[in-house]
Amino acid sequence: MIHAVYPGSFDPLHNGHLDIIRRASRIYDRLTVAVLHNPLKDPYLFDLDERVAIVRDVVKSLRGVEVDSFGGLLADYMKHVDATVIVKGLRAISDFEVELQMAHLNRQLNPNLETTFIMTATRWSYVSSTRVKEIARYGADVSKLVPAPAHRKLRERFERSLAG
Amino acid sequence: MIHAVYPGSFDPLHNGHLDIIRRASRIYDRLTVAVLHNPLKDPYLFDLDERVAIVRDVVKSLRGVEVDSFGGLLADYMKHVDATVIVKGLRAISDFEVELQMAHLNRQLNPNLETTFIMTATRWSYVSSTRVKEIARYGADVSKLVPAPAHRKLRERFERSLAG
Amino acid sequence: MIHAVYPGSFDPLHNGHLDIIRRASRIYDRLTVAVLHNPLKDPYLFDLDERVAIVRDVVKSLRGVEVDSFGGLLADYMKHVDATVIVKGLRAISDFEVELQMAHLNRQLNPNLETTFIMTATRWSYVSSTRVKEIARYGADVSKLVPAPAHRKLRERFERSLAG
Amino acid sequence: MIHAVYPGSFDPLHNGHLDIIRRASRIYDRLTVAVLHNPLKDPYLFDLDERVAIVRDVVKSLRGVEVDSFGGLLADYMKHVDATVIVKGLRAISDFEVELQMAHLNRQLNPNLETTFIMTATRWSYVSSTRVKEIARYGADVSKLVPAPAHRKLRERFERSLAG
Amino acid sequence: MIHAVYPGSFDPLHNGHLDIIRRASRIYDRLTVAVLHNPLKDPYLFDLDERVAIVRDVVKSLRGVEVDSFGGLLADYMKHVDATVIVKGLRAISDFEVELQMAHLNRQLNPNLETTFIMTATRWSYVSSTRVKEIARYGADVSKLVPAPAHRKLRERFERSLAG
Amino acid sequence: MIHAVYPGSFDPLHNGHLDIIRRASRIYDRLTVAVLHNPLKDPYLFDLDERVAIVRDVVKSLRGVEVDSFGGLLADYMKHVDATVIVKGLRAISDFEVELQMAHLNRQLNPNLETTFIMTATRWSYVSSTRVKEIARYGADVSKLVPAPAHRKLRERFERSLAG
Repeated sequence: MIHAVYPGSFDPLHNGHLDIIRRASRIYDRLTVAVLHNPLKDPYLFDLDERVAIVRDVVKSLRGVEVDSFGGLLADYMKHVDATVIVKGLRAISDFEVELQMAHLNRQLNPNLETTFIMTATRWSYVSSTRVKEIARYGADVSKLVPAPAHRKLRERFERSLAG
Repeated sequence: MIHAVYPGSFDPLHNGHLDIIRRASRIYDRLTVAVLHNPLKDPYLFDLDERVAIVRDVVKSLRGVEVDSFGGLLADYMKHVDATVIVKGLRAISDFEVELQMAHLNRQLNPNLETTFIMTATRWSYVSSTRVKEIARYGADVSKLVPAPAHRKLRERFERSLAG
Repeated sequence: MIHAVYPGSFDPLHNGHLDIIRRASRIYDRLTVAVLHNPLKDPYLFDLDERVAIVRDVVKSLRGVEVDSFGGLLADYMKHVDATVIVKGLRAISDFEVELQMAHLNRQLNPNLETTFIMTATRWSYVSSTRVKEIARYGADVSKLVPAPAHRKLRERFERSLAG
Repeated sequence: MIHAVYPGSFDPLHNGHLDIIRRASRIYDRLTVAVLHNPLKDPYLFDLDERVAIVRDVVKSLRGVEVDSFGGLLADYMKHVDATVIVKGLRAISDFEVELQMAHLNRQLNPNLETTFIMTATRWSYVSSTRVKEIARYGADVSKLVPAPAHRKLRERFERSLAG
Repeated sequence: MIHAVYPGSFDPLHNGHLDIIRRASRIYDRLTVAVLHNPLKDPYLFDLDERVAIVRDVVKSLRGVEVDSFGGLLADYMKHVDATVIVKGLRAISDFEVELQMAHLNRQLNPNLETTFIMTATRWSYVSSTRVKEIARYGADVSKLVPAPAHRKLRERFERSLAG
Repeated sequence: MIHAVYPGSFDPLHNGHLDIIRRASRIYDRLTVAVLHNPLKDPYLFDLDERVAIVRDVVKSLRGVEVDSFGGLLADYMKHVDATVIVKGLRAISDFEVELQMAHLNRQLNPNLETTFIMTATRWSYVSSTRVKEIARYGADVSKLVPAPAHRKLRERFERSLAG
């Protein structure tokens, strides 16, 4: 039985992420979407609980998909949850280089870890959480780029900030 | 149960290929190494039977790994052997672009197909069948780049051609 | 008035090409789709007349779009038809590098020439004439990848070759 | 009549930007150089008025070129000024990927928008505003990299800061 | 006699750096490892003296290798120490683009400067100071990624911070 | 004393090659331009003697530069002429990947070999022997892209072929 982990910040989850989750859930017996909390990173738009809640809401109907959160090294987390496969989506060359580096480094930390990559569907290839937030901040419609629960949260957040 | 296929020309199998096979065999329940015969391609150094024989010889001790050959479209072959996951190794950006195109095209032909990528180990990242043949042709030692059965076949082939 | 030229082999025209033609025709006053005949290239699947006929058939309803053919250097052809803008579609990094080289070289040959690039729509980003022919050759359905006139010609060609 | 917009931070305008403006002004009927004010970005060296003033000073003799500024989403600005073509310069692969993403995203926000790319002249391919500022900050000569009005402003700024 | 300079932040020196130093010292008559102090950069983990001390400790047994530090423009430093060759390691495409830009810019500032690149050994291709610090911060073992003096310093630093 | 080798097909030598030769000759004590004869490659336009003659003619006034030819593996040739440094020019990403592979492979064949890369000057970054021949074949002027001896030979060759 293969337990795979799909790690990410998911700030917030967008349709490209969801596409990878759906497809990975058909390949691996068990898939954990693991939301990263990295205190050294730039401030998140949504805090860890909010990000986890959005993911949970979106994937609740997908069979064999669990949601969790973690801090620290992914290699340590993988050991902790007894998982051996890391799932990553690849959109572009710049992703490729960073992910190549991380995959080799994770294997150096733990030779039993394997990273497998899935190409993001072309229709979501230009979507990133950073862009989604940028667009939503200016009041543009992102309902085609993110699942409904993320859309609601984004609208709520930026209406509040516009009102503030 | 996931049946994965690792397709390629394997003309001949080298250590980078073997690394991918070993690692993929630990992820998927069943892995078929599928040797491609493409009559439109440049002439192969080894004919299909020889290429298959080398692969069989090398992987015989790996659990859950089978060897087969195919012609025509990979998408058709996948349906034929009832497999849903294509495994590919990624070494470099140029690989990435070709493989991205093929992965999207294969999903267009059959939406149930999934391609997953594994990064080739850094120590084999510069090895390709083309380079191996080029080096072996000039009599240099390729024993560190290919498994023993491929090495024997290469030596045999190029000694013959030098003698001829 | 800007006269733009969209050059290519179009062997045959596919949906990615058509997308570029449609979009370029809205930007430039006059757009000529110029089908290249390069006797030094690998054999074409369709001869020049067939390739031109397919393009003509497909673009006949587009306003301001003409179809022509040329041999020799694009820079010479541009002068001949009194055009100053070359239109190219960009799909991927590998396209980018070749096109960068060609754009600079064409400006060296004629400093009045300008090359403008349009990004191929994501849904056609994985389609190329080479792949379309490869797939059609094995009898798979390419009707979603090429316009109807190209589809008819491909089916005709490969049925004939299968029958032959 | 095609109204094109060349957007950017222009902090400050350099010779690579000027090359794109000159060339784009020969392709489109009307070209607006649109200076972006993004309050979320890292601090600019020059404030919006200064950046606009430098651009105005440099392009005043170019026919059909206007200068404007904007905040918010480019897609909204395009609608506001009734423009349909976004002009971008491409220098390198890393540009290419970001721009590819932005071009697709802008079309998702407004399907009538078109982004056209021009390759930066090779002699300016290594020039960026970031590098120019870095070099000028240490008192090195950047007069070959930026137009005279930008050069004056840079010298003024860094002399002041050295004196301060 | 060629005096070459290998510049960098070395925060801290890792095995990939050391590999480049060893190999460059066999090519050039004299090699200076020049530790950069850039006050505009994000905070360093180790201050300039610490970074220099680690490098000195590691390279003390290498013939023809000196250690120095500098601020300001590399082109100015090169003139100051009468050196003409800049040595850089290349790991990946993203390195390549930045370094290409810097190499051309340095030649624009001083046409006598030459930048030569060495490919980082594949086994260190995924190692960077940023990743090393990230991993060490979480208490994971980086002894295979950095020379002993850097390892000691990292352990010292992060034990202190954990204890603090 | 460092003996460096700049290998290539030089079919024919162009201005980008000459730029690398000039710059490398200032770095290394002794530089051999080594013209490759590879019988397995596509037909050359100029035979080995002609290619060597053009290079000799062009570099005769450069101090410390010799011209030679070789067949077989570069690693063997390096040993034969007692040289340890391979010089390569880098223009673009696609060069980078091929050269990365070759550099690592050559070190695997002979760990004492070192490959150093120099970035081609931006003004020649779009010039390649393949493009030069393509352009010259159609009678266009390539005098700005190649040194005079190569230009004469190209004109001679294509006039003859036009006359023939």
